[in-house]
Amino acid sequence: MQCPIARSLERVGEWWSILIIRDCVHGLRRFDEFEKSLGISPNILTRRLTGLVEAGLLERRQYSERPPRFEYVLTERGEDFRPVLAALLTWGNKHFAPEGASVVFGNRETGQIADPVMVDRISGRPLSDPVFSTAPGPAAEGDVLERHLRLLNSGIG
Amino acid sequence: MQCPIARSLERVGEWWSILIIRDCVHGLRRFDEFEKSLGISPNILTRRLTGLVEAGLLERRQYSERPPRFEYVLTERGEDFRPVLAALLTWGNKHFAPEGASVVFGNRETGQIADPVMVDRISGRPLSDPVFSTAPGPAAEGDVLERHLRLLNSGIG
Repeated sequence: MQCPIARSLERVGEWWSILIIRDCVHGLRRFDEFEKSLGISPNILTRRLTGLVEAGLLERRQYSERPPRFEYVLTERGEDFRPVLAALLTWGNKHFAPEGASVVFGNRETGQIADPVMVDRISGRPLSDPVFSTAPGPAAEGDVLERHLRLLNSGIG
Repeated sequence: MQCPIARSLERVGEWWSILIIRDCVHGLRRFDEFEKSLGISPNILTRRLTGLVEAGLLERRQYSERPPRFEYVLTERGEDFRPVLAALLTWGNKHFAPEGASVVFGNRETGQIADPVMVDRISGRPLSDPVFSTAPGPAAEGDVLERHLRLLNSGIG
């Protein structure tokens, strides 16, 4: 599949994988830390960690020789996943926290709670501005190209 | 689970669900349109659509009486999921599109390709700025509160 959303989901399209990345962002590194945090069975955890290493989001590092022990550390690709977590957090706070937010982004300097929003770095405008729409990129072909041409023709894109 | 990321994933934590929302954003509404776009089996599609309706992301609307036909339309909660899609798209373009981006956000006025980034609406600073960190919100308790206090104590938070 050429769609970049589908390609992303191929790597992290499982519940547990995203929660493991969340835990890594929170500084967790060791098997038993993930196990305790997630309440996940050891063999599912092993499978998900291996998947994240294979997809290049985590690096497996040996931190003890005897006994052999490993920890899992976010790669640059894993670090770059943070905006997805921030977007999921913001959406969850808005729609599934009737009792109020339990996790927020705090601004250490001002003490204020941040209000995360996706903007275009170039123009500074929010991506929700109708001036923006998804469009075929330089490498578009096949299904993706056809889908966007159909959208343009129907006036939706 | 109190974590807003976990709560979000409870609603959309399946591959297909997220791709269905993507298709809705692209203007698709009808069962056969999703089926064709996703190459998904009818009974999985039915299950995912029902799940998205129950989670309040889609509304099921009858558009024909004879024969009875239904279409699926994004609710406000579903529309609010767009930043998650934008973050997944941006991450996919950066890390899993060696041949170049096939889908981008275009700015209709300038013709430029947008560079999506998550910022704090209040201060205007990117959320990746070290001044920001996740913190317990007003409703934090139990696991979530404990996790963040542990992070603060270890100097990671």
